[in-house]
Amino acid sequence: MNAANWWQDDCRAADQQVRAAALARQAQLTKPAGALGLLEQVAVQLAALQGTPRPQLELPWIAVFAGDHGVVEEGVSAYPQAVTVQMLRNFVGGGAAISVLARQLGATLEVIDLGCALPLEPLPGVRHLQLGAGTANFARMPALRDEQLHAALAAGRDSVGRAYAAGAELFIGGEMGIGNTSAASAVACALLSCPAHELVGPGTGLDPQGVQHKAAVIERALLLHAEHFDDPWQVLRCLGGFELAALAGAYVACAQQGVPALVDGFICTVAALCAVRLNPACREWLLFAHRGAEPGHRRLLAALGGEPLLELGLRLGEGSGAALAVPLLRLACQLHNDMATFAEAAVAGRSA
Amino acid sequence: MNAANWWQDDCRAADQQVRAAALARQAQLTKPAGALGLLEQVAVQLAALQGTPRPQLELPWIAVFAGDHGVVEEGVSAYPQAVTVQMLRNFVGGGAAISVLARQLGATLEVIDLGCALPLEPLPGVRHLQLGAGTANFARMPALRDEQLHAALAAGRDSVGRAYAAGAELFIGGEMGIGNTSAASAVACALLSCPAHELVGPGTGLDPQGVQHKAAVIERALLLHAEHFDDPWQVLRCLGGFELAALAGAYVACAQQGVPALVDGFICTVAALCAVRLNPACREWLLFAHRGAEPGHRRLLAALGGEPLLELGLRLGEGSGAALAVPLLRLACQLHNDMATFAEAAVAGRSA
Repeated sequence: MNAANWWQDDCRAADQQVRAAALARQAQLTKPAGALGLLEQVAVQLAALQGTPRPQLELPWIAVFAGDHGVVEEGVSAYPQAVTVQMLRNFVGGGAAISVLARQLGATLEVIDLGCALPLEPLPGVRHLQLGAGTANFARMPALRDEQLHAALAAGRDSVGRAYAAGAELFIGGEMGIGNTSAASAVACALLSCPAHELVGPGTGLDPQGVQHKAAVIERALLLHAEHFDDPWQVLRCLGGFELAALAGAYVACAQQGVPALVDGFICTVAALCAVRLNPACREWLLFAHRGAEPGHRRLLAALGGEPLLELGLRLGEGSGAALAVPLLRLACQLHNDMATFAEAAVAGRSA
Repeated sequence: MNAANWWQDDCRAADQQVRAAALARQAQLTKPAGALGLLEQVAVQLAALQGTPRPQLELPWIAVFAGDHGVVEEGVSAYPQAVTVQMLRNFVGGGAAISVLARQLGATLEVIDLGCALPLEPLPGVRHLQLGAGTANFARMPALRDEQLHAALAAGRDSVGRAYAAGAELFIGGEMGIGNTSAASAVACALLSCPAHELVGPGTGLDPQGVQHKAAVIERALLLHAEHFDDPWQVLRCLGGFELAALAGAYVACAQQGVPALVDGFICTVAALCAVRLNPACREWLLFAHRGAEPGHRRLLAALGGEPLLELGLRLGEGSGAALAVPLLRLACQLHNDMATFAEAAVAGRSA
């Protein structure tokens, strides 16, 4: 597990026999064919990934990765950097959205401090990895040092290892970090060869002038680092962040370990794009929870061919949008497993 | 409760003081303003409707209304009429989608037989009202007799009365009836002054030729009954169905009793449009669960100003789409009630 470039190791394959059996079962359930829409597809996908005709989702694992971003010194966020550490306390204190959601879902919530800019006392319930006092300002230099990027990728992988060991049937990654829509937007622009103004949005709440400034800062950074954009690892190093890298490492590890991952919003979807560029075979293990309010999210989902379950205008992060989609996945499984077939219920099919 | 034209009686008003307090609370929770999108709006709406700053949704009530449609003799459905009674058995047998969902949600499921075309033995767990052996063929004559329409509206109202008495915090109406997208489409065309081809879709699974035939049958019926289209009660009588009328009666009664209603798919949304035309003040009590696969659903939701929570390509009916949205409403309430405020969690707000 500590080999260099572990993220290039093979991913597990979904079970195609189970997929075929699950598809056949869907056609026999007492409903018009396809009448449960996207829920039929996710039930079949979960069956194939879990390798069982009766998919289930009792224990979701939620890992929230937090880190700060040097680029905030360019004035790209509406919130002060102090919020990152304050929110870490709130996550373990039970008052954050993801804390409420994890409790209601019976999910395990793990909180990982990858590196905050402000000093932080050890917090019970938080894993403090502190890879740095935030990243460097990517508008002036590479955001991460090589060893920081290695450690952040491994932090994501190790969280998936704990989820797997606990028997979790679904991995949800979340993120917290003031300035991280800037880093995510920059990474996405580099990977999609897209100018900043087409992808940059208000994040947690910039006004139009703020969005314009943020796009200009990112455009400058794209020029600075352009020579590295054919290598996703280098893109993460130059423009990424601790939590982006951890999420990318986690998604690859999910596919390697065989744990389906439910991708949250804009930032997580950028991390998913990094994961797929690092190891394309991991795509099959990714489900997409929602299309968020950040305008660039639509483009990212399209680039990944992701069809999200929800579109509620969310822009919170923390993994909250993915957590909100968990009941739909559970109900999709329960409908798949528990509905009667036409034969069992003695119901006639189509006339023609 | 048995007065003539009871549906014109006053609706209850939402509590505007509670609404203001709920809005103020949302602004204090530890998240960027508006970051929970539509979930913030539904939490505030439920608070105002329930008249409490801590909305909750422990007991949803699901009533499925079943009835047959004389218009099927025109060949407008892909399924034989026998399916209506077979599905009634499946509802109480526990194998239908709505049965699985009600069980998982801890919801009360009530099944009401308003009038099937085929003979049906008394079924334990079904309320048999049997207002007729299906409706008359609306392409040739009015679908319902006056007394049938009165009884069907009252059947919906009485179900809401039982939900209220049981302490249910949410009413979900569902429907089952081969041919009922035809009746619903005809009613919608009459109420929206819209030609059939603009609103008619495949229902549970017609091919393009079938859709064209269905539109032609409905267009003929619209010509036959056109003189009555300024009166929603007459539109229901001429073109409606037992379950459409019961749902319309239920939605009006929800507003009169003070039980929020969660509207399911295309057919339920047509019934909601009837309810709003019968008594406009009931609109405030309606929440919309999802935008379904039937193409006309988008237009109906727009006519009602309804912003649905889900869009999953559903086309099942039974109340299933509304049931699928219940966990989102519950989580919206729990986030509203249980998240920490900025002050409680000592988290900083926006810098600017």
